Amino acid sequence: MITIVSSTNQKNSRSRQVAEYYRQQIQAAGADARVVDLADLPVDFIESALYGNFGKHDAFNAVRDLVEGASKLVFVLPEYNGSFPGVLKAFIDGFHYPSKLSGKMVALVGISDGGSGNPLGMSHLTDILSFMNATVLGLRVKIPFLKKNWVEGEIQDEFIKTLLKQQIEMLVKLP
Amino acid sequence: MITIVSSTNQKNSRSRQVAEYYRQQIQAAGADARVVDLADLPVDFIESALYGNFGKHDAFNAVRDLVEGASKLVFVLPEYNGSFPGVLKAFIDGFHYPSKLSGKMVALVGISDGGSGNPLGMSHLTDILSFMNATVLGLRVKIPFLKKNWVEGEIQDEFIKTLLKQQIEMLVKLP
Amino acid sequence: MITIVSSTNQKNSRSRQVAEYYRQQIQAAGADARVVDLADLPVDFIESALYGNFGKHDAFNAVRDLVEGASKLVFVLPEYNGSFPGVLKAFIDGFHYPSKLSGKMVALVGISDGGSGNPLGMSHLTDILSFMNATVLGLRVKIPFLKKNWVEGEIQDEFIKTLLKQQIEMLVKLP
Amino acid sequence: MITIVSSTNQKNSRSRQVAEYYRQQIQAAGADARVVDLADLPVDFIESALYGNFGKHDAFNAVRDLVEGASKLVFVLPEYNGSFPGVLKAFIDGFHYPSKLSGKMVALVGISDGGSGNPLGMSHLTDILSFMNATVLGLRVKIPFLKKNWVEGEIQDEFIKTLLKQQIEMLVKLP
Repeated sequence: MITIVSSTNQKNSRSRQVAEYYRQQIQAAGADARVVDLADLPVDFIESALYGNFGKHDAFNAVRDLVEGASKLVFVLPEYNGSFPGVLKAFIDGFHYPSKLSGKMVALVGISDGGSGNPLGMSHLTDILSFMNATVLGLRVKIPFLKKNWVEGEIQDEFIKTLLKQQIEMLVKLP
Repeated sequence: MITIVSSTNQKNSRSRQVAEYYRQQIQAAGADARVVDLADLPVDFIESALYGNFGKHDAFNAVRDLVEGASKLVFVLPEYNGSFPGVLKAFIDGFHYPSKLSGKMVALVGISDGGSGNPLGMSHLTDILSFMNATVLGLRVKIPFLKKNWVEGEIQDEFIKTLLKQQIEMLVKLP
Repeated sequence: MITIVSSTNQKNSRSRQVAEYYRQQIQAAGADARVVDLADLPVDFIESALYGNFGKHDAFNAVRDLVEGASKLVFVLPEYNGSFPGVLKAFIDGFHYPSKLSGKMVALVGISDGGSGNPLGMSHLTDILSFMNATVLGLRVKIPFLKKNWVEGEIQDEFIKTLLKQQIEMLVKLP
Repeated sequence: MITIVSSTNQKNSRSRQVAEYYRQQIQAAGADARVVDLADLPVDFIESALYGNFGKHDAFNAVRDLVEGASKLVFVLPEYNGSFPGVLKAFIDGFHYPSKLSGKMVALVGISDGGSGNPLGMSHLTDILSFMNATVLGLRVKIPFLKKNWVEGEIQDEFIKTLLKQQIEMLVKLP
């Protein structure tokens, strides 16, 4: 089972929409997938689920287990202040150590209103996942200018669609 | 006034201790400084102070104002999963836009139990601060092997002490 | 004297043109500037000026001295394979150690044919300059879509022009 | 055939020695491997093999073909000025476009005299390889304090040896 993470806790985010789209594309490619939305994290998890409270918060554990238990992962990364949302890293800081992501394959998709498509956020997360011994697919897909490129639940740019398809094929195929 | 941020919300952290040490060194160099400990953030700020709730949480605003209102900044960055704590970036995601840090000088200190001294975390935060138009001093100080190098409230390694002194001199001198 | 480095050894590059434009803007702001074009490096400097041959190649030294002797620096960074040209880093690998850039201010401009404006290249070079104890201005300017944004020796996009002006003002003002 | 790149053009480098050691370990794991030493590049390749001269230099092409033609790759990355040697990136700037490395697996080993093990250099190269659509194994191995950890052609630290073995197993196993 591939888990796709919508990497912000903002409600009803476009990251969530793009994650849903990605899920459909994975299923069209013949694999199983589900979406995990960080908007479902307990609002106080930075205290109630970290450090001395590690493992004590059932609702946090439920979300975390969907990510840690996945065979492969996708992160949809909106650009917040030149990187990905802090809440994603705080979530990761509540994961088991040694990492249950060790040896797993991960795909990254960066999205932004502006022209960048979040290359720095994808670079930063690659470093963090590398620390956890998870392997990020070389093809990191950027979706910039989201208002133009994401209309009515569909990617508008044919080249980006091709890249997403290529990324999904690699993710599904690799062990 | 220089604000030194202890960049984790873990209580009684060594980041906090190093931040206090740094404050004393700044004052010994003749400038004013205070420590902001992210352990003082409201435990639910990722919901109650972000997005639609921006600006609505007085306790969050109080901490944020100490950082946004500083003339210069220092971040003490413990290494969590190969970078800095997610809670710091979530905190930054609650800052004003355009950034009140624009044009300000920032110094970074990375700390870790292991041998790295958090170079990747300092690199990631430099990118984020750059997005906000804040300038990070070139000299980013690493304090690795914290158990050996940080004993009874004092840096043990003379070379690291020299680098910190050099960093503080530059920070105090620059406009 | 501010030195502006055109960071590729390709002859008659657009980096060179943008560097010349930048020089004019600095002079309009009342400061002195000159352009150093890496196309002027000896073609065999990776052997004749590095390692055991450090310091032995006069033509290499002449170019290097213009950079190491500058009071402040600007690097115009074209995007080659997702970062800046390797020749720039090879050039830097021939600099003195400890670095003569220590304590100096540096501004970065990223340029690209595609939509990125070389954010990763600017991030990588910031890390390298940080190692050398040089401080990179927070405002790193991206000029993407160069064919559209750079016509007849002039930046076409008003927002990019404003950012360049802002960057130059800061560079000139800072010590 | 796995190609291991000694990523400096310095003659008789320790990178070359570590690359040879790595080759033996791969062969002990039952796969074929060879070492490519960037010291074998033509000394003037930044002119004679790039830009308008792309493809025209047989000696350059010979080295490049060993890398581009490999099924998998390993880069041994010494730390030069806080990153990997510029000559490696200049070499990469002479590769075909679109990249022949697309879809291939790559392992990184960082080495340094100091305590870092070149984490920033490995991060930078990951970004560049990602641009070329090559996938870097999450486990990036750091060999710091080379004088202590590399004696008489052998890694001295058991934990580093374990990590290298783990990295080689993954590299050999993945498609």
